[in-house]
Amino acid sequence: MSIKNESEDRADLIIHTMRRLATRTVLFHQAAAQSLGLFPTDLKSADLLNELGPLTAGELSEKTGLSSGAVTALIDRLEKAGYAKREKDPKDKRRVIIVPLTAGKSQVKELFLSLSASTKKLTNEYKPEELDLIIQFISKAAEIMDQELQLLKSKS
Amino acid sequence: MSIKNESEDRADLIIHTMRRLATRTVLFHQAAAQSLGLFPTDLKSADLLNELGPLTAGELSEKTGLSSGAVTALIDRLEKAGYAKREKDPKDKRRVIIVPLTAGKSQVKELFLSLSASTKKLTNEYKPEELDLIIQFISKAAEIMDQELQLLKSKS
Repeated sequence: MSIKNESEDRADLIIHTMRRLATRTVLFHQAAAQSLGLFPTDLKSADLLNELGPLTAGELSEKTGLSSGAVTALIDRLEKAGYAKREKDPKDKRRVIIVPLTAGKSQVKELFLSLSASTKKLTNEYKPEELDLIIQFISKAAEIMDQELQLLKSKS
Repeated sequence: MSIKNESEDRADLIIHTMRRLATRTVLFHQAAAQSLGLFPTDLKSADLLNELGPLTAGELSEKTGLSSGAVTALIDRLEKAGYAKREKDPKDKRRVIIVPLTAGKSQVKELFLSLSASTKKLTNEYKPEELDLIIQFISKAAEIMDQELQLLKSKS
């Protein structure tokens, strides 16, 4: 087998393996969200708010790839479930921002506790420099997913 | 900082980065499924059928973590959308198996073409032995996600 083919094979294997992970990620989050009485998108939008801090509905629509109508319904559900609340932006009273609420977090944290513990255990099998490489790759893969979401949204 | 703390930090960073990827994965698949007129779970269940080959409804319920009622509705939607069909198992005519249909695949493939191309481009930044390490890690992460899904399902 030529070097070119081998490198093609590795790229295909990465894509296949990432896809296997994505399938299980989507199914896991479906089950996790269901056990909290939420949609998977709700759960991950709450996660996004926790990651990025308060956002306006427009920003949340942009970041999640959801339509503004879908985002309004989403914020209603998050408010009702106690994961976020609408607030006037202290910096600009005409703006409404969606603030993540830590109150709902403990229940979510508990749900992901076992996953975090298993992932932590897996990291023990690797050397620090190997983990740094893996962190860098996954971080770049997350950026790609972000860009692809924006691209998909721009086409629809 | 002690070595223990550093290794704790790295494990936390892996968990945080994996979670960032998961958030974007769920949101991307939400948008992708929506553009096909499907639910994200439908899309990934079709993927799972393609990955594992024909399954019975019971097996599909086990693998996806969905209830048997939800799986019946899912198979109805997949049949309607042309991604799968119910067939009598040629090895045991009393069993009904869900067969993935390649007909629906080209549309799905096209949707993931850009993501695959970006991922392929990313792999160019890494040496073969680095990619092997990453493939191994992601593969194990997918296995963990599978186990955690089963665990979550057993609790509900």
